[in-house]
Amino acid sequence: MSCDFLALANPGVLALHPYQAGKPVEELERELGISNIIKLASNENPLGLAESAKKAIQNQLSQLTLYPDSNGFYLKQAIAERFSIQSEKITLGNGSNDLLELIARVFVHEHDEVIFSQYSFVVYPLVTQALNAKAVVVPARDWGNDLQAMLAAITDRTKMLFIANPNNPTGTFLEADELERFLSQVPENIIVVLDEAYTEYTPVERRSPSLAWVDRFPNLVVCRTFSKAYGLAGLRIGYAVSHPDMAGLFNRVRQPFNCNSLALAAAQAVLADEAYLAKSVALNREGMGLISAFCEKYGLAYIPSMGNFITVDFAKPAAPIYEQLLQKGVIVRPIGGYGMPNHLRISIGLPEENQRLLQALKEILAL
Amino acid sequence: MSCDFLALANPGVLALHPYQAGKPVEELERELGISNIIKLASNENPLGLAESAKKAIQNQLSQLTLYPDSNGFYLKQAIAERFSIQSEKITLGNGSNDLLELIARVFVHEHDEVIFSQYSFVVYPLVTQALNAKAVVVPARDWGNDLQAMLAAITDRTKMLFIANPNNPTGTFLEADELERFLSQVPENIIVVLDEAYTEYTPVERRSPSLAWVDRFPNLVVCRTFSKAYGLAGLRIGYAVSHPDMAGLFNRVRQPFNCNSLALAAAQAVLADEAYLAKSVALNREGMGLISAFCEKYGLAYIPSMGNFITVDFAKPAAPIYEQLLQKGVIVRPIGGYGMPNHLRISIGLPEENQRLLQALKEILAL
Repeated sequence: MSCDFLALANPGVLALHPYQAGKPVEELERELGISNIIKLASNENPLGLAESAKKAIQNQLSQLTLYPDSNGFYLKQAIAERFSIQSEKITLGNGSNDLLELIARVFVHEHDEVIFSQYSFVVYPLVTQALNAKAVVVPARDWGNDLQAMLAAITDRTKMLFIANPNNPTGTFLEADELERFLSQVPENIIVVLDEAYTEYTPVERRSPSLAWVDRFPNLVVCRTFSKAYGLAGLRIGYAVSHPDMAGLFNRVRQPFNCNSLALAAAQAVLADEAYLAKSVALNREGMGLISAFCEKYGLAYIPSMGNFITVDFAKPAAPIYEQLLQKGVIVRPIGGYGMPNHLRISIGLPEENQRLLQALKEILAL
Repeated sequence: MSCDFLALANPGVLALHPYQAGKPVEELERELGISNIIKLASNENPLGLAESAKKAIQNQLSQLTLYPDSNGFYLKQAIAERFSIQSEKITLGNGSNDLLELIARVFVHEHDEVIFSQYSFVVYPLVTQALNAKAVVVPARDWGNDLQAMLAAITDRTKMLFIANPNNPTGTFLEADELERFLSQVPENIIVVLDEAYTEYTPVERRSPSLAWVDRFPNLVVCRTFSKAYGLAGLRIGYAVSHPDMAGLFNRVRQPFNCNSLALAAAQAVLADEAYLAKSVALNREGMGLISAFCEKYGLAYIPSMGNFITVDFAKPAAPIYEQLLQKGVIVRPIGGYGMPNHLRISIGLPEENQRLLQALKEILAL
């Protein structure tokens, strides 16, 4: 081409690796010449769309020529009531990815330092890199966030810390007391982003009172999503809870119509649908039990997980196993890109999907 | 609060004015104690959702627990075929707002200069400000882009130019030959963003061959939306066409799941629905004729518009007229914020909505 655009783009952008997305399942089936592929790769809810969400969507269809409600008035009201917080603390996002990016863009400046753990969600290094900030990757402890080491990594250039609890892609969990101690030690001029995408899968009695912490730690932002336990990944909707002044900043930068009308309506409906959430969680617990028991029976190591996925250590390069599973119509997630080449991350599916996975593993590993 | 977040945030963010969104119509009806409000304020399609789009949405509902196709494979294929371009030139966005922001973030650096016209889309100054870049606002000519003045405003700090055609909020139009001459004079190291959100409403024979220009002008990006003539504002979906290398950059920075599954499916369906598009355009032309004729009959000045809205000059502060229309249940758009305090922007509605607007104006203005 006649003009070198690579030279014109911002330096942070240039260093980004292009995102390699998977093909649609239909395309893959065509390529492999097989049908009935099951996907246990993206930590999606296997239960199918909640009827409550479906009904809410149907009721909104006639309104789709209109722009969404920019304030997300009703959904914010529902979240505020559900968790007994002020509506002014809430920022809505086009999935929690949108929020993670937004938060970084508000606070992180070129050359600032951003701290996160080894083996943590791929979006943290991506947003850091896009802003041409410096990623400070702290070695994991037992595959999870090493909070002491993260505190020790703080310098006067540090602007932000990302912590996922439970952690993705490893499923590790931080108890409330250790997290609280950590928050009280982080200087107030450093923003802590606590990513609780998988929190609904954790036992209620062990969950951190993170939303209440926002009052004590005004540098804390908690992010959550409707993509996992609430089953709305395809619609893109998540929320952040922070001090109202901070939410005010996020709402200045947020695209005015970042959340679509159907996502707003469906999220409001499913938030009130306690039966769906309970069923999601129970199904997950059952599948997790089944797959862990299988691993234990056959001597496969795995990382105990509080999420809706389990990360299994095959003690040898896992890529060939991933390929063989694919040939048998089971898609799981290779995580070599996370520095875990011997592991595969497996999302918990429906009982019959889990059985199919285990049968395939038995055949491949000759168990 | 114990920590001053305003001091921590990026300077560009701090200078942003918080976005003031309108209330949901239901809330407004409750407040004003009236019902049956009509909204001619946001340039939305009055025709209602296309049946083709509705069917596509219904077919996708069972898939909503899954993440969207990150590549937008089928929609890109449909756009590529429809306009005879390569799929690799396309970037999909969560509405064209997402694309305008994305393009700016890829190329514009702090303190760069960004040129756009007086009376142009509010998103251009917003994205410029958020990046702490310098907005260079060129005085309009006859309420539209003054291309000669914009060329003259270029300096060695200029990184980007935004041009809307047709222009919003004024509806002015640039002919293909003047736009082509302009593009051939802009230095190649300056990105030109041509925002064609309203292009489908313009007569085919006067439209610029903008997508083909991308081959001749590799610094050109054309943005379009499904929010207007295609009637999908509530779903959030738009596309940009550029040199494939540039699209590659955009796709590095784009959130991997920025477009939701229903938007992808509905856009693909409505793009093939030529009857819906033709009906949208015909309805708009008819309403535009009616309102222009009214203005001429009663001596109200208006800006001739190629969009789906008409901007009327009341020759005195228009805010009281806006308020009186509101009391009569007709919402239009005051554009004092654009520096046009005597004008109101009125979206073309259904025949009965247009009649109601004109009746209300007659009463208010005692015509």
